[in-house]
Amino acid sequence: MDRSRLEAFSDGVFAVAITLLALNLTVEGPGLQHQLYEHRWSFAAYLLSFFIIGIIWVNHHVLIRSIALVDRTLLFLNLVLLLFVVLIPFSTTTVAQYLPVGGEDVKVAMAMYSAVFLGMSAGFGSIFEWTLHGDHRIVPLPPQAHWPARLRFVGGSSVYAVAIVVSLFNAITAFILMALIAVYYIVERTPTAPAASDSPGGGARVDGSQQDK
Amino acid sequence: MDRSRLEAFSDGVFAVAITLLALNLTVEGPGLQHQLYEHRWSFAAYLLSFFIIGIIWVNHHVLIRSIALVDRTLLFLNLVLLLFVVLIPFSTTTVAQYLPVGGEDVKVAMAMYSAVFLGMSAGFGSIFEWTLHGDHRIVPLPPQAHWPARLRFVGGSSVYAVAIVVSLFNAITAFILMALIAVYYIVERTPTAPAASDSPGGGARVDGSQQDK
Amino acid sequence: MDRSRLEAFSDGVFAVAITLLALNLTVEGPGLQHQLYEHRWSFAAYLLSFFIIGIIWVNHHVLIRSIALVDRTLLFLNLVLLLFVVLIPFSTTTVAQYLPVGGEDVKVAMAMYSAVFLGMSAGFGSIFEWTLHGDHRIVPLPPQAHWPARLRFVGGSSVYAVAIVVSLFNAITAFILMALIAVYYIVERTPTAPAASDSPGGGARVDGSQQDK
Amino acid sequence: MDRSRLEAFSDGVFAVAITLLALNLTVEGPGLQHQLYEHRWSFAAYLLSFFIIGIIWVNHHVLIRSIALVDRTLLFLNLVLLLFVVLIPFSTTTVAQYLPVGGEDVKVAMAMYSAVFLGMSAGFGSIFEWTLHGDHRIVPLPPQAHWPARLRFVGGSSVYAVAIVVSLFNAITAFILMALIAVYYIVERTPTAPAASDSPGGGARVDGSQQDK
Repeated sequence: MDRSRLEAFSDGVFAVAITLLALNLTVEGPGLQHQLYEHRWSFAAYLLSFFIIGIIWVNHHVLIRSIALVDRTLLFLNLVLLLFVVLIPFSTTTVAQYLPVGGEDVKVAMAMYSAVFLGMSAGFGSIFEWTLHGDHRIVPLPPQAHWPARLRFVGGSSVYAVAIVVSLFNAITAFILMALIAVYYIVERTPTAPAASDSPGGGARVDGSQQDK
Repeated sequence: MDRSRLEAFSDGVFAVAITLLALNLTVEGPGLQHQLYEHRWSFAAYLLSFFIIGIIWVNHHVLIRSIALVDRTLLFLNLVLLLFVVLIPFSTTTVAQYLPVGGEDVKVAMAMYSAVFLGMSAGFGSIFEWTLHGDHRIVPLPPQAHWPARLRFVGGSSVYAVAIVVSLFNAITAFILMALIAVYYIVERTPTAPAASDSPGGGARVDGSQQDK
Repeated sequence: MDRSRLEAFSDGVFAVAITLLALNLTVEGPGLQHQLYEHRWSFAAYLLSFFIIGIIWVNHHVLIRSIALVDRTLLFLNLVLLLFVVLIPFSTTTVAQYLPVGGEDVKVAMAMYSAVFLGMSAGFGSIFEWTLHGDHRIVPLPPQAHWPARLRFVGGSSVYAVAIVVSLFNAITAFILMALIAVYYIVERTPTAPAASDSPGGGARVDGSQQDK
Repeated sequence: MDRSRLEAFSDGVFAVAITLLALNLTVEGPGLQHQLYEHRWSFAAYLLSFFIIGIIWVNHHVLIRSIALVDRTLLFLNLVLLLFVVLIPFSTTTVAQYLPVGGEDVKVAMAMYSAVFLGMSAGFGSIFEWTLHGDHRIVPLPPQAHWPARLRFVGGSSVYAVAIVVSLFNAITAFILMALIAVYYIVERTPTAPAASDSPGGGARVDGSQQDK
């Protein structure tokens, strides 16, 4: 079994999930301008979810390319990741729906929204953990680099765990927290996945020689 | 005609179907926590269908890679498989809708849910049967291995047939039965498709030499 | 520009369109068994549209593989084909909605249903016509084979034109006519696209040598 | 990181977005013929959006093939482009919904419709700008060609900016303006992306030698 179909299927799921995000943006009846204003949280949630899916897609990309071996364990860990990716349009719509309402419900909605991202992050982390064992990586990571790399992952994931807790006090603060982290990941130069060593400068030339490295 | 477009199209259908599963998860109005609890069967059905599609995708993957020849018969057998895959979001939503209601309807819904999986399984089995004939496989299966392989398939499919019958007595038992089988398939090490001989250890190294084996 | 992205994009559209077909299958409220019976036309329309999309996908597959050159004209002709493919879930839902109602509306719905397939068929035919000119085919078709090939196409398309006319008298007859044609295309051995000469026996071995033929 | 997954993911998003366009075409109740007439603007908006997505897909195709290097900046610029592509089904449905209503709302809807295309165009332009720097292109564009190429882009994008302004006075004029531009782009022979030099005549032969050019 080769990497290409794993990538194709995952890309398909990422692409459909990211496109379905916008499916719940709907307006109806007179007063469009006012309605668009009323839906401002829907647009904000759409934007945030879009970029979080985008970031995880970029990192998934880098991580899968570092893999030498595709086995059933990897396929099922990848399914766990996708299980949460597929839930994102639902959790996004839910949070967008309860944000203008406020009260107890918006806290539950935001906690669920964060929890779906935490699940996605854990799924991604489990794939990363899998790459550290056996001869799963093309270029093995030196053992002394395992723990720093793991800590970076736990660091990233823990933001979503923090966001769950914050949600229960103030949903909007949790939302802003996640937005800041997303901006940080987009702006920072070093890839989350420690495949940086494979492609110095964060880029890889597209030439045959690189293809099967 | 080459394998790649057959795979690309199938992966597309699998990816869209698996993502649409979550499209019918919706909550509305006040009391989110209570609503999520009320929808627990929707989440359970989502989870089960997600992993059954995931398992069939993994097996489809392994089976198609063992194929030497793509002809029109294969393409149409594959369409029959996909016909049932596409119906899964519908049957999942229906079963999730009637599970909290109970009564006669939930039995019909669960029988239909199992029947769609039986159809999918039969479609998959027909592709497998096709691979046993002519020079359809890259590495032909020795004739004495045909019947044991077929029996494994019939064994797998018959679970869904049993589930249809069980549904008519107790829908929830049928649901749990299918869930146990899904867990079994995820945990077991040997691939359902007898391509195990192609890739000992259940994994395949990603290097050019394997590419066209 | 290479064939692969044209294929990937088309396969994506085919896959999404074929999966969306089932999105409008919905049941609600008590009496599931009765409801499924009431929706029998929805299932029949789903089945027919599924296989017609499947057939056109198979033929698209064969036709694109015979092409040597991808230019902007081809890309836009392909867009015209996809324009109608994308309309199929809409026309299918519409026809399924009006079939149980009957009267004048079902005739209009069925005529529209047939017209969308006629448009798809015309889009496909225009791609085929394009392949007959210049050095667009890998293996040029001898000029004396142009007209017979065209006639086969016009023959196939004219079924949909006939179905439009028949719809205006009896919608169900038109539906059965299209179903018979779909069965004929699935059962017949010779591909519609005259690429048969490329792959005798209707199949092609998956080996590198065939890859770039 | 190679071009292929960037293309696969983008193609997936384009394909899903273009297919979802038709998801909001729905009719209900008696009087189908009258209803189809009532929905004429929905069909017109569907048609326009379909071809604008199609044009941007073709140009995306040509632009990405001219790229030598895939880095994180490119991936995120591409995400910005896709962010707006994903919004197109929403803006299309909205404009189709308010066109028969008229008044202030249709102007807002049409301005938003144009703004989404302007955003898409700006995202595309930013990818193009990125290709002009460093060694991002396989065949570098001579510096004296940078400004003319940029001007062509700004020229194309400015149509959507003009359409926003026109929308505020007359929505239908803005709609017709965008339709004329779409027709112009489909009919014109020179690709928008200045990759024309790579493939004289606007076409590229599908042979191995071209593959990695």
